[in-house]
Amino acid sequence: MAKTKAFKPKARRPRGFEDRAADVLRAERALVAAASGVYERWGFEPLETPAFEYADALGKFLPDEERPNEGVFALQDDDEQWMALRYDLTAPLARFAAENFQNLAKPFRRYQFGEVWRNEKPGPGRFRQFVQCDADSVGAGGPAADAEMIALAAEVMGAAGLTEGDFLIRVNDRRLLDGVLEQLGDAAAEKRLRVLRAIDKLDRLGLEGVEQLLGAGRKDESGDFTEGAGLDAGQAAKVLSFVEIQSLAAEQADPTRFTLDRLTATLGETSSGKAAVGDLEAIVDMLDALGKSPSWTLDTTVVRGLGYYTGPVFEAELLASATYEDGSPMRFGSVGGGGRYDDLVARFTGQAVPATGFSFGVSRFAAALSALGRLDAAEPDPLVVVVAAEKDRMADYFRLAAELRAAGLRAESFVGGGNMGKQLKYADRRGAAFAVIVGSEEREAGTVAVKDLALGKRLAEKMTDRSEWEERPQQFTVPRDGLVAAILERLQG
Amino acid sequence: MAKTKAFKPKARRPRGFEDRAADVLRAERALVAAASGVYERWGFEPLETPAFEYADALGKFLPDEERPNEGVFALQDDDEQWMALRYDLTAPLARFAAENFQNLAKPFRRYQFGEVWRNEKPGPGRFRQFVQCDADSVGAGGPAADAEMIALAAEVMGAAGLTEGDFLIRVNDRRLLDGVLEQLGDAAAEKRLRVLRAIDKLDRLGLEGVEQLLGAGRKDESGDFTEGAGLDAGQAAKVLSFVEIQSLAAEQADPTRFTLDRLTATLGETSSGKAAVGDLEAIVDMLDALGKSPSWTLDTTVVRGLGYYTGPVFEAELLASATYEDGSPMRFGSVGGGGRYDDLVARFTGQAVPATGFSFGVSRFAAALSALGRLDAAEPDPLVVVVAAEKDRMADYFRLAAELRAAGLRAESFVGGGNMGKQLKYADRRGAAFAVIVGSEEREAGTVAVKDLALGKRLAEKMTDRSEWEERPQQFTVPRDGLVAAILERLQG
Repeated sequence: MAKTKAFKPKARRPRGFEDRAADVLRAERALVAAASGVYERWGFEPLETPAFEYADALGKFLPDEERPNEGVFALQDDDEQWMALRYDLTAPLARFAAENFQNLAKPFRRYQFGEVWRNEKPGPGRFRQFVQCDADSVGAGGPAADAEMIALAAEVMGAAGLTEGDFLIRVNDRRLLDGVLEQLGDAAAEKRLRVLRAIDKLDRLGLEGVEQLLGAGRKDESGDFTEGAGLDAGQAAKVLSFVEIQSLAAEQADPTRFTLDRLTATLGETSSGKAAVGDLEAIVDMLDALGKSPSWTLDTTVVRGLGYYTGPVFEAELLASATYEDGSPMRFGSVGGGGRYDDLVARFTGQAVPATGFSFGVSRFAAALSALGRLDAAEPDPLVVVVAAEKDRMADYFRLAAELRAAGLRAESFVGGGNMGKQLKYADRRGAAFAVIVGSEEREAGTVAVKDLALGKRLAEKMTDRSEWEERPQQFTVPRDGLVAAILERLQG
Repeated sequence: MAKTKAFKPKARRPRGFEDRAADVLRAERALVAAASGVYERWGFEPLETPAFEYADALGKFLPDEERPNEGVFALQDDDEQWMALRYDLTAPLARFAAENFQNLAKPFRRYQFGEVWRNEKPGPGRFRQFVQCDADSVGAGGPAADAEMIALAAEVMGAAGLTEGDFLIRVNDRRLLDGVLEQLGDAAAEKRLRVLRAIDKLDRLGLEGVEQLLGAGRKDESGDFTEGAGLDAGQAAKVLSFVEIQSLAAEQADPTRFTLDRLTATLGETSSGKAAVGDLEAIVDMLDALGKSPSWTLDTTVVRGLGYYTGPVFEAELLASATYEDGSPMRFGSVGGGGRYDDLVARFTGQAVPATGFSFGVSRFAAALSALGRLDAAEPDPLVVVVAAEKDRMADYFRLAAELRAAGLRAESFVGGGNMGKQLKYADRRGAAFAVIVGSEEREAGTVAVKDLALGKRLAEKMTDRSEWEERPQQFTVPRDGLVAAILERLQG
């Protein structure tokens, strides 16, 4: 083709987008299947909304978003309306619920998994497209719906192969901080978002960094200055003492009771704080009934980055650890989270519609589970490659492969080019258990030669007691009709 | 929140994008699972490329595409490079294969399913986002790889519940038309794409319409004029006589043999035609070996819309028919297709890398299978709704639902608001089989009341012999500890 010579594009991906190959996909699919199974069992229904939404329908709830359409991939449709790729699965659900409100059985409980896109600066392990898996209840205002989300998330983590002590779902309520801000007076309440973001950086910056961000601001090591929330020293101390309830609670015999009592004592007089503590008491009661208390904890340091949360917020953290080959520890951290967002549907309808949900980051969670060896991603069945020994006999090889597949094996007849050596190398690289060869000699004798590649590999790696296998040849010949039985027998032996 | 009042976006989707609910998703997922199972069994590996590619890497192969970036959703990255959402899964595969060529075991055989996006005018049943499911071989030049694609597609259709006579995979070769154009001289060869598009409209416009498009052009009923390929009457007649081989073959005892002989007779002297007929002979030989001849046919009218095909092309057509409620026939037509595209990887590498593949339109195919009642999309297990009779006893209801789930049922405790009547209505709308009620009376007696909603529905619809069920009450009371056993027994009875 002439144009091949005229213009040659470079084969490369846009920055921050990845290709995912078999191993990664098998792990992600096993996780999504496990999560979907749990959601279905709890009576949630599947839903898929499209990748695009109108930009105004998505709203602006991403962390650190300043300019219009910042953080999202947006473009104008031919009628000049701005569309954007979804940055999560929650904002589209709010649009769906508002659009179909009259026709939904409420609470509308749905699960969804799929790609989301964020137009952020990519970095190591930080992609601009990733998969989320969410469950949400729309139209349920009480703490029961929140408790259900926490229990559901814990069950998903169990279905993914994690056991007690491997993970913790940290529970907080945004209204507690509103209670603190109430005590500080109205001017501080307006600084809510900055205060939230400051607390959200506790892990990274420590108490001192958070204190700076609550006050005048903070200059980082590179000299960049981040403006603070502008609280005075006394106000900042009150916020910090709320945050520090977590570390005090950790030292108590009953951290949950300690936290609830301390919250009641310090915030029970504020309207926001009182409502939050009441809901947390109810949530604790319901979770205790399920006997799953080791899987969750109250934690006043939890914030969640998205701007739309209005009540309880949750964060799922992996505690189990793995090590890199050099022995250094592999940190996993948060693999999901969620919370209550009672105003998101109201953006459209004007009427309050309570809602709560939980979202897992599938790629990150699956990668962690693979590293921990905890996810049971089924290994594919053994592969048999039928070598194309005589190129004009492909029809025979097709038939052989079909017979092997009919017996439940994975099988292919080699459809590429190259001699026997190249084909055997291909079978090896594909991880095939057997190569099947019918050359002119075998054809005339009515036989088939079989190479046991898996055995060959074991012998080469000396991973097996050689004497145990020495009576089993790596290559053997069987009658054409006995091929399937011979291979099945080898696999069992 | 103040901003709720300040701005109220309308809850609506961008045109041409759909929300897919439980029924549709269960059908699509069953189809994707069936297809993936077949691909895995044939030794294909999963791969997922990202939604975005650089626009130049995707190339311009969509039908009727004239302006830059037409037909795709494109935007500029912050480094000013144009990115576009993939319009199919083949162009990204070519990019992937070129980018990773040295590290792949060849032929590289992968399957992929996922969304694709086309920036076209939406219409009824015509969406701008849809799901495709593809299998491709990269690095396999011979007809064996094409034959494999056809056999694979037929097996997928079988796995989707279709049987002999329900479908047909139509096979053609683009080089045959090149052979015809060779006979017409070089000037005509340059008109290749227009000629292809003219033939592609045979179904819709008939022979006369195609003849006009091969010649000066055609004015449609609305008065719009489509420019033709500019062939003279004699040239157009030669193209048409090639296309018409299909209808002649259909009347023969052995249409395949007739077609191959006729093609040899008319095009065997041209270099393109000769190569095509040779490959088709080999493909026929291999498919015959699999004993699946009723599932495919040679068909000189098949074109395929995409511009990148270079050799054999395939089209999967549903023949099985269903009827609308008014008795009028439901037409399904093409649900997938593919072909050989030997120049697509070479766009990047400059070196020829042969490739062939097959793509199913999942949404369209699954919808057709649902209408035909052919796809076995597993019905979800029976749902039990635990009514929230006493709002301060939610912990008990949580425990009840957990016990029911542990017994293998789908179960939820109602987490929304509203009285018993509203909750029972909810259970009914959700299609629940049972509602479980523990009010103060039952609680004190240590019992549980169960409403058999499925039985109630059968009685209400008079779909059952009333006498058969009359000894079974619609509502019954069991001891708290006997709930799970009682429900399981009802489900078996």
